[in-house]
Amino acid sequence: MRVFGVDCGTEFTGYGVVEVDRLDQAGQMPRLVQVAAGTIRLSKKEKTPLRLLQVYAELTALMALHGPEVVAIEEVFFSANAKSALKLGQVRGVAMLAAASCGLPVAEYAPLSVKSSVVGYGLAGKEQVQFMVTRLLKLDREPESADAADALAVAICHIHTAQTLDVQGGRRP
Amino acid sequence: MRVFGVDCGTEFTGYGVVEVDRLDQAGQMPRLVQVAAGTIRLSKKEKTPLRLLQVYAELTALMALHGPEVVAIEEVFFSANAKSALKLGQVRGVAMLAAASCGLPVAEYAPLSVKSSVVGYGLAGKEQVQFMVTRLLKLDREPESADAADALAVAICHIHTAQTLDVQGGRRP
Repeated sequence: MRVFGVDCGTEFTGYGVVEVDRLDQAGQMPRLVQVAAGTIRLSKKEKTPLRLLQVYAELTALMALHGPEVVAIEEVFFSANAKSALKLGQVRGVAMLAAASCGLPVAEYAPLSVKSSVVGYGLAGKEQVQFMVTRLLKLDREPESADAADALAVAICHIHTAQTLDVQGGRRP
Repeated sequence: MRVFGVDCGTEFTGYGVVEVDRLDQAGQMPRLVQVAAGTIRLSKKEKTPLRLLQVYAELTALMALHGPEVVAIEEVFFSANAKSALKLGQVRGVAMLAAASCGLPVAEYAPLSVKSSVVGYGLAGKEQVQFMVTRLLKLDREPESADAADALAVAICHIHTAQTLDVQGGRRP
């Protein structure tokens, strides 16, 4: 399974592609491999529609390039004001549209689930997520940005969830 | 000038295309004409990415069909919770992306400006907006929905703003 994780932001949008082997019969832990990761940086000088066009163009190109089976995005329920939620929603809508345009299903995970799945603790900080992502993917160094690390984390969260459902004989979300 | 107005919503997104003749030398009031108006209805049963794909596909098709010079969208700063702001932002992001994909500039107007421009009163209700839009465009009956009326209103607001700037010798936004 290959998963395309996205961490949306109004200035930086992280992405991370993670692949995993199927669980073998002996029940050995399958290997998680980072296929790609990076950050889409948006110019603050550019107007919003052109920034959204950049995110959309880069995400669809990356999805076409890496051919994932599913796109995983973090759900956001935060306490910030409605104005910043609206702005974040604009980027998030475009990311979901990119997935739908590529014919890919979208799985959403709450931040608590992502952190629990990767760090084992729902209230873990950014540094702990970066550390554990680096370890789980056996990377030589940390991802280039916290956003890329978060995107890899949500992809790993989807794989862990799918594996748990596999073991339980349930259906993948 | 031909303006494509959009009123974004998570369930209903209204659109309205309004055309106007240039101000003539005698300074006569130019005629406002409704070119098209309608409502994009999203199925609540459908998942968000597919709903966003529907809005995007319909808006880009309508923009290509009607060939406007500019897209006008209402700014939203409301007191509702962050969750609903995020959801509305998702639709709004896709609408702005549709404009950018079609190579069209986007003009944003605060709800207060739209109502002031159309009704002459910033705190006007939905019915007053519907009534004045019907009158300004000399329609036989009210627009098919409040969302379509709001979309026509934001298009008219852009035309009024551009006309004021024309008269003042200023630049169009």
